[in-house]
Amino acid sequence: MSGFTHFDAAGRAAMVDVSEKAETARVAVARGRVVMAPETLARILEGQMGKGDVLGVARLAGIMGSKRTSDLIPLCHPLMLSKVTVDFTPEPPDAIAIEALVKVSGKTGVEMEALTAVTVAALTIYDMCKAIDRSMRIEDVRLVLKDGGKSGRYEGA
Amino acid sequence: MSGFTHFDAAGRAAMVDVSEKAETARVAVARGRVVMAPETLARILEGQMGKGDVLGVARLAGIMGSKRTSDLIPLCHPLMLSKVTVDFTPEPPDAIAIEALVKVSGKTGVEMEALTAVTVAALTIYDMCKAIDRSMRIEDVRLVLKDGGKSGRYEGA
Amino acid sequence: MSGFTHFDAAGRAAMVDVSEKAETARVAVARGRVVMAPETLARILEGQMGKGDVLGVARLAGIMGSKRTSDLIPLCHPLMLSKVTVDFTPEPPDAIAIEALVKVSGKTGVEMEALTAVTVAALTIYDMCKAIDRSMRIEDVRLVLKDGGKSGRYEGA
Amino acid sequence: MSGFTHFDAAGRAAMVDVSEKAETARVAVARGRVVMAPETLARILEGQMGKGDVLGVARLAGIMGSKRTSDLIPLCHPLMLSKVTVDFTPEPPDAIAIEALVKVSGKTGVEMEALTAVTVAALTIYDMCKAIDRSMRIEDVRLVLKDGGKSGRYEGA
Amino acid sequence: MSGFTHFDAAGRAAMVDVSEKAETARVAVARGRVVMAPETLARILEGQMGKGDVLGVARLAGIMGSKRTSDLIPLCHPLMLSKVTVDFTPEPPDAIAIEALVKVSGKTGVEMEALTAVTVAALTIYDMCKAIDRSMRIEDVRLVLKDGGKSGRYEGA
Amino acid sequence: MSGFTHFDAAGRAAMVDVSEKAETARVAVARGRVVMAPETLARILEGQMGKGDVLGVARLAGIMGSKRTSDLIPLCHPLMLSKVTVDFTPEPPDAIAIEALVKVSGKTGVEMEALTAVTVAALTIYDMCKAIDRSMRIEDVRLVLKDGGKSGRYEGA
Repeated sequence: MSGFTHFDAAGRAAMVDVSEKAETARVAVARGRVVMAPETLARILEGQMGKGDVLGVARLAGIMGSKRTSDLIPLCHPLMLSKVTVDFTPEPPDAIAIEALVKVSGKTGVEMEALTAVTVAALTIYDMCKAIDRSMRIEDVRLVLKDGGKSGRYEGA
Repeated sequence: MSGFTHFDAAGRAAMVDVSEKAETARVAVARGRVVMAPETLARILEGQMGKGDVLGVARLAGIMGSKRTSDLIPLCHPLMLSKVTVDFTPEPPDAIAIEALVKVSGKTGVEMEALTAVTVAALTIYDMCKAIDRSMRIEDVRLVLKDGGKSGRYEGA
Repeated sequence: MSGFTHFDAAGRAAMVDVSEKAETARVAVARGRVVMAPETLARILEGQMGKGDVLGVARLAGIMGSKRTSDLIPLCHPLMLSKVTVDFTPEPPDAIAIEALVKVSGKTGVEMEALTAVTVAALTIYDMCKAIDRSMRIEDVRLVLKDGGKSGRYEGA
Repeated sequence: MSGFTHFDAAGRAAMVDVSEKAETARVAVARGRVVMAPETLARILEGQMGKGDVLGVARLAGIMGSKRTSDLIPLCHPLMLSKVTVDFTPEPPDAIAIEALVKVSGKTGVEMEALTAVTVAALTIYDMCKAIDRSMRIEDVRLVLKDGGKSGRYEGA
Repeated sequence: MSGFTHFDAAGRAAMVDVSEKAETARVAVARGRVVMAPETLARILEGQMGKGDVLGVARLAGIMGSKRTSDLIPLCHPLMLSKVTVDFTPEPPDAIAIEALVKVSGKTGVEMEALTAVTVAALTIYDMCKAIDRSMRIEDVRLVLKDGGKSGRYEGA
Repeated sequence: MSGFTHFDAAGRAAMVDVSEKAETARVAVARGRVVMAPETLARILEGQMGKGDVLGVARLAGIMGSKRTSDLIPLCHPLMLSKVTVDFTPEPPDAIAIEALVKVSGKTGVEMEALTAVTVAALTIYDMCKAIDRSMRIEDVRLVLKDGGKSGRYEGA
């Protein structure tokens, strides 16, 4: 057996059956970082002071992106998200950390929604800043918390 | 001045005016990596042999995702992409490298489309394998080539 | 405190947490008007008789638009709407009134879905008639009824 | 004849043929207003000072909404917008004016894209403020400028 | 009376009210066929052996398409699908049969989601093979099973 | 070689490169049929007389669906359609024929857009009538005309 839940015994992809799973409160937290030139970080942080709010745009993009997860990821179930937040922490001299938290009351978890929120927010930071720094990198996108549902709590680094 | 092209002089976000830009042939290449447990990589590579083709699903998701870029990234212009490819290279013992190439004949570049293809492909690998490995990480997502248009050729690491 | 529920204490936008809210039957009714030249109204009403049903197209667009609300409004929760109707009342000599009713069994209200249905229907009337009357105006779009949920019943003018 | 361009001689809806139209530079400007309680306006303007930027969110929503116009309005042609801006002007004591400008190089005009940007921005203001003021109204949504293309320049009030 | 549930007594289209319906386990199975030249079928089946997996692409497209049903079919309710599978059976010498199964726990059935999965999978087979066979036909798309909900079980041919 | 244009030499799916293709006027016509009980056809045709216009709804759905083709079919290029029409011809006693015509000025053809319009219109007829006739079938969906572009004119049965 392959252990992959998204394939059947013959190796065919499927949206797996969650009909029998209980509808429970679920939460997931994902994190990532955008690494950039120190000058780029400085300009973004100036923007926070009122002119050109890169992170405000990226936050919205991340929230909206999480709502599109089941459109983007082929075998994800559609879910009615009950909470999405995206936050940023500068990591001087050259990075911004991104954290997304997603909650749902549903039959399946929201790891992908949290990871999608982080990556869309990161891509938006890239888009907003690419005219001044094409060498930015998206790093360390990972799940740091998942709770609720049969498989129980997971905590990552 | 902030140097950010997506804000006007008052710091207001806008989809910038590309009306006067020439419609030229443009290309962008982006890369990234999914780092995972060696056992996870082994199972994915077995799947390539016929049962449970994780990378085939991720490739399609990346290609389809690149077509949704202007829906996801708030200030991106809609573009009629003329080519999208997504390819994978195993990096034993514990990673898969992803490369996306996007072409367009248009007034603006396709960096974001290439980066979006890479990240959606990476997220899909995560989704397909998360039941066996929740600790996977998306790393090193960056632009490696951009050509065409006024700002000329860029080559990244 | 700002009183805005869509911002946290630091002023950051978020899709607010409705996890703990009860799933109750909710309804919202919104209204608006498209004001136009009397000749334009006359032609639309002729269409009702069989040739060129402007309002039939606008009704469908409004219903379909209400299903896209959470795609359009950044901080709206996705909802599984259980009923949507859009209706029109001519207001001779120069206007058409639009009313949308939306129902859901969910954790949050459907005011935005009803308002979106009205505005998309109004925009569609504009689109269908713009070749004969560019000076049409969308007016008086407002919530007239909301019921269900903790905040109780609201009735507007 | 009905004069409606979106219906054929038998009254059937169609996406009209623009194949033979020239690809020209086109622009459209639309405006509208959200009328609210003076207290609501005051709070929105305070937010501009740094906590809870309602208009920043509404601006992005309007820009993103304009890119979805052909998804929302049944007979609109898809277009590759080359510029979109959305701006706000407070009209004390009780209103905010919205103006959207859209440009394209294409075979058909962008009136609907400008009007959609205004209405989605207006709906977003409503959504952000509805917890404190359910009686807000969207008013005076209309086209104020259209230029480019065969039908020539239009200026509205 | 017309008997059409999607129109009211005046013949106006509406998304019908399912508020009062019970949320029950529902399933639907739809089938269809793509008829093609024997040579085309032979090439598709070769692809199954490892190079150019037409049916793998079509399967994903069908699954993803079923998630878009309420975007495509004007009066369909949005639903949170809990399972979607799409499978193919070669019918030598000249056809491929498609079967889609969809499950939901909801207030309305998933017949349209199953039929949409079949047709999108069929269209994708056409797209993948059209360079070698433009004369393919989609045939026999029908509902073969529906269960759950008030109207009870239906079995088709 | 497989002859499939959507796979590379290694059998990997790709959105094929149309960068070098000329932008030419292209047209495609597709047809299909919905077969139903004679009573169902009779009721649909009564609706044409004013109450419950099934075909009017299906026409709009088909037109709107054709605009979503590149979202649905994984390897389709996005295109700016310049014309879409969908028409119906009753075929007494038990069928309705559907014909869709799509035009574009672009680098690739619109066969898939025409076929998608036909199938979405057919699915919508099914949806509108399923409460009275679950045994309807979609049949004979095929390309009947394609012109423009390097591969020249194709005429089907």
